[in-house]
Amino acid sequence: MKAYEQAAAKFAEIQKLQAVSTQLFWDSKTMMPVSASSGRGEQMGALTQVVHEKSTDKELTDLINDAEQEHNELDDWQRANVREMKRLNVHAHAVAGDTAVAFAKARNDAGVAWVNAKANNDFNSFQPHLEKVFGLQIEIAQAKAETLGLGVYDALLDEHDPGSSTAEIDRLFGELEAFLPDFVREVSQRQTEPVPLSTVDTGLQDSFIRTVIQRIGWPEDGRLDHTEHPFAMAGSPGDPRITTHYDADNVMFTMMAAFHECGHGMYELNLPKNDYAYQPVGLYRGGSTHESQSLGVEMMACRSEEFLGWLFPRLRDAFSVSGDAWTDENLMAHYRRLQPSFIRIKADEVTYPLHVILRYNLEQRILNGDLAIADIPDAWDNEIERLLGIRPPSLSEGCLQDVHWSMGLIGYFPTYLLGALKAAQFFDAAKRSKDELLPALAEGEFAPWMDWLKDNVHQHASFYSAGELVERATGSQLATTALIAHFEERYGEAIL
Amino acid sequence: MKAYEQAAAKFAEIQKLQAVSTQLFWDSKTMMPVSASSGRGEQMGALTQVVHEKSTDKELTDLINDAEQEHNELDDWQRANVREMKRLNVHAHAVAGDTAVAFAKARNDAGVAWVNAKANNDFNSFQPHLEKVFGLQIEIAQAKAETLGLGVYDALLDEHDPGSSTAEIDRLFGELEAFLPDFVREVSQRQTEPVPLSTVDTGLQDSFIRTVIQRIGWPEDGRLDHTEHPFAMAGSPGDPRITTHYDADNVMFTMMAAFHECGHGMYELNLPKNDYAYQPVGLYRGGSTHESQSLGVEMMACRSEEFLGWLFPRLRDAFSVSGDAWTDENLMAHYRRLQPSFIRIKADEVTYPLHVILRYNLEQRILNGDLAIADIPDAWDNEIERLLGIRPPSLSEGCLQDVHWSMGLIGYFPTYLLGALKAAQFFDAAKRSKDELLPALAEGEFAPWMDWLKDNVHQHASFYSAGELVERATGSQLATTALIAHFEERYGEAIL
Repeated sequence: MKAYEQAAAKFAEIQKLQAVSTQLFWDSKTMMPVSASSGRGEQMGALTQVVHEKSTDKELTDLINDAEQEHNELDDWQRANVREMKRLNVHAHAVAGDTAVAFAKARNDAGVAWVNAKANNDFNSFQPHLEKVFGLQIEIAQAKAETLGLGVYDALLDEHDPGSSTAEIDRLFGELEAFLPDFVREVSQRQTEPVPLSTVDTGLQDSFIRTVIQRIGWPEDGRLDHTEHPFAMAGSPGDPRITTHYDADNVMFTMMAAFHECGHGMYELNLPKNDYAYQPVGLYRGGSTHESQSLGVEMMACRSEEFLGWLFPRLRDAFSVSGDAWTDENLMAHYRRLQPSFIRIKADEVTYPLHVILRYNLEQRILNGDLAIADIPDAWDNEIERLLGIRPPSLSEGCLQDVHWSMGLIGYFPTYLLGALKAAQFFDAAKRSKDELLPALAEGEFAPWMDWLKDNVHQHASFYSAGELVERATGSQLATTALIAHFEERYGEAIL
Repeated sequence: MKAYEQAAAKFAEIQKLQAVSTQLFWDSKTMMPVSASSGRGEQMGALTQVVHEKSTDKELTDLINDAEQEHNELDDWQRANVREMKRLNVHAHAVAGDTAVAFAKARNDAGVAWVNAKANNDFNSFQPHLEKVFGLQIEIAQAKAETLGLGVYDALLDEHDPGSSTAEIDRLFGELEAFLPDFVREVSQRQTEPVPLSTVDTGLQDSFIRTVIQRIGWPEDGRLDHTEHPFAMAGSPGDPRITTHYDADNVMFTMMAAFHECGHGMYELNLPKNDYAYQPVGLYRGGSTHESQSLGVEMMACRSEEFLGWLFPRLRDAFSVSGDAWTDENLMAHYRRLQPSFIRIKADEVTYPLHVILRYNLEQRILNGDLAIADIPDAWDNEIERLLGIRPPSLSEGCLQDVHWSMGLIGYFPTYLLGALKAAQFFDAAKRSKDELLPALAEGEFAPWMDWLKDNVHQHASFYSAGELVERATGSQLATTALIAHFEERYGEAIL
C-alpha cells in the first residue's frame, strides 16, 4: 500500500473519532442532564486522549512525509489532501507534552475565573489567569510560527483560518475602519425606535422555522434543537444538526439564529460524501469560509428586502399576530435597525465589524508587547469609544463579555468579519451570474443561491486554498467592496 | 506504580470509551435522523476498533497477571476487581483475529436475512446464515470453555451472566416447567376478556409517567425518551437514561415499559460513583441481576395490588378518563390477564417463563448436536404446544420472532427468567425485613423497596459473585419458591 493510502486510513480513523467527539458535544448542549457533566468530562477526556495520541503518532508524520514523495503518483485531490494532512500535523505536534497539559489546565482555570469575573464585574481576579493563557498560547504560536515559516499571529490564523494573513486583514479591516464609524453615525441618527414585537409561542415559532429551513434545503428529518447558545454541529458527515435559542420574547432572534445555523449546516451537508468525507481535504475551508455560509444565508438572503417581503405575511399567519408591531413597515424597521451597542453577539450587521476590529487591534497590540494584560480594560473602553462612540458602563459589558480569550482563542475573531466580507462577495457574484436569484428569494425559494454555493464553495471543501476559492468563485481577491456596497444599498437608501 | 494501578488505569480508559459508545447507541435510537445511519456505523466502527485494541492489548493481560501476584497488597475491592478484569480479558481475547471478523460479518448478514425472513415467513433463506452464526459462536464458546475450564454453554453464560450455570438453570427451569403449564391452564380458563381501554394522549401519558418514575427515584432531570423498543442506557455513570414506546392505543404498555426501564436505570444510577465507577468490579452483576431490577420495579412493585390501588384513581385523574373500561375492577382485570400467546415480549409474567424455557431447551439441543438448525421450525412449534398448548400460525410468530439468534446471542435468554426468579426472591426478602414496604407502595412510596435494593444489590456492583449476592441479600440460594409463591398469591386467589 502506498504511504498516501496508509496515511489516509489513519486520518479517516482520527476524523471518525473526532465526529464522535462532536456528537458528544452536541448531546452535552442539547440532551444531557446537567448532573452528568463531570462524568461526560471524563469520557470526553478519554476520547480526546485517543485522538491526540493518534494525531501525534510518529508513524503518521513519517507517512505524510513519504506521501509527499509520492507526488507524481497522486491525483489532484490526493495532493491537496497531503497538503492539508501536513498542516494538521504541524498544529497537532505544536501543542504536545507538558505545554499541552499546562495549556489545558490554564484554559480550564481561566474559564472558571472568567465566569466569576464577568458575574462580579471584576477584572483583577481574572487577570493572572488571562496572563497565563496568553503566555502559553504565544509560546505555542511561536513554535508553530517557526515550523510554518510564518509570523506569530499568522501561525494562529493558520489553525483557524488557513490562508488568512495579518497583511490581508490589516488592509481589509483598515478600509472598513475608515468607512464604518461615520456611516454608522449617519444612519443611526436618522432612525427611530420601532414598535416592540409581542411575544410568540415557541411552539409556533418552531413549526414556522422548520418550514423555512426546509426551503433553504434542510432535510425534513434534520435536527433542530434548543440550546442556550445556537450552534451547528460540524464534522459528522451525513448527520447535520443545528440549534437555536427559542425565546418567546424575541422571535426575530430565534428565527434568524436558526437561519444562520442552517447556513453552517448546509455547508456541512454538502461537503464531499465520497472517499474524502473523513479526510483533511474534505473538511470545511477554515473558519471564515464557514462563517460566510451562515451569514450568506442569514444576512444576505434572509434579511434581503426580497425574502422579507415573502416572510412577513407568512409569519403573521403562522403566529396569528397583527397590529402596529407586525406591519411590514414596523417589521422592516426592526430588520434595518442600526445602533451602536456594547455586546458583539447582539450587534447589528453594520456595527458588528467594529466589534471584531476592536478585538483584532487589541490582540495585535498584546502580541507585539504594546499592551499589557492589566491594561486591557482601559484599552477596550477607549477603543470602543473611538470606533462606536459609546463607553461600556461595566466590565461585563466591556472586555469581560466574551469567553474566547479565556479559552486561548487568539486569532479567531477575525474569521467572523472575514466571513461577512466573503458572504457579501459571494452573494454579489451569485446575483451577477444568476438573474433569477433575487426573484426566487421573493418567492421564498433558495435554490439559485444554494446551488451557486454548492457549485462554488461547498463541493470544493478544502481542495483549493481559501484565497483560490474566493477568486475562482467571484473573479477577484477578497475585498471590502461588496460588503460596503451591501451596507450602502441596504442602509444608505432603504431607510432614508 | 503497582501493576494493579496500571491495569485499573487502562480499564478506566476502556470503560470510558465504552460509555461513549453507549451514548452513541442511545443517540442512534432516540435522536439521530435515519439518514445518518451509515455514517454513524463508520464512526461506531472506529470507536469499537479502538476499544477492541485496548481490550486485547498484550500489555494489559500481563498487567492483570502481575496484579494477581500482588494479592496480599490489595484490599477486598481491588482483589474483586482483578477477578473481574481477568474474566473480561478472557472474553475479549476469545474472539480475536479472523474469527472476530468472520463472526461480525456473519452476524451482520444474518441480521439482514432475519428481517427479510420474518417479513416473508421464510425460514429457508435464513437457515444458512443461522448455521454460520451458530457454528462460529460454538467455535468461540469452545475456546472460552477451554480457557475458563467450563462447559460450552456455561462459557457463554459466563459472558452475559457470570455465576449462572446449566446445572442451576436445569434445576430451576425444570421446577418451573413442572409447575407452570397446569397453573396457566387453570387460571386462564377462569378469566374473561376485560373491556378494552380507550386511547390516551401520549403527552398526558408522558407527564403522568414522569411523576411516577420520580417517585421511584428517577432524577427530575433524568432523561425519558421515545424509542421503537424501550431500553435503559447502561455503563455511563451519572448519566442514566431510559426510554419507552409511547403508544396512545396502549397506555398500559407505555407506562409499564417505562417503570421496567426505570428499574434498570435505578441500578445504573446507584452503582458506585467512586474509583470503581469505570472499573470491571463497578459494573452491574450480570444480565440476570440487571433484569431482576427492572422486574423488581415493574412486576413486583408496580403491578402489586397495593401500588395499583394508588395508581388507578390517579391515572384516571391524569388522563381525564372514566367509564366501564377505567374502573378499578376492569383495570385490575387487565393487569391480571393471563393468556398463552405466541410473542415472548408481549407475554404476561406467568406465561413469559415458558417462552424462555422453550428457547433454553432448543439451545441445549442444538449445542449438544441433538437438533439441526434446519429442524428448528418444527421443534419450536412442538415445544410451544407442549408448554403453552398453542401452535403458531406462522413462522414469524414462531421461531422467527426474536432477533437474538441472528446476533449470535446464545446463552442469553436464561437471564430473563433468572431475573424474574431473583426479583421475586429479593422482593420476598425485602418484605420480610421491612414491614413498611407494602403499606408504602399503597401510598405510592418506593423508598423502602429502593433502599433495600440499594443496600443489598446496587451498591455492591460486581464485588460479590452473583450467587453470593443473592444469598447475602435473601439468606438462601436462588430458588423457584418465591416466584411460584408470588404467582400463586397474585393469580391463584386474587382472580378466583
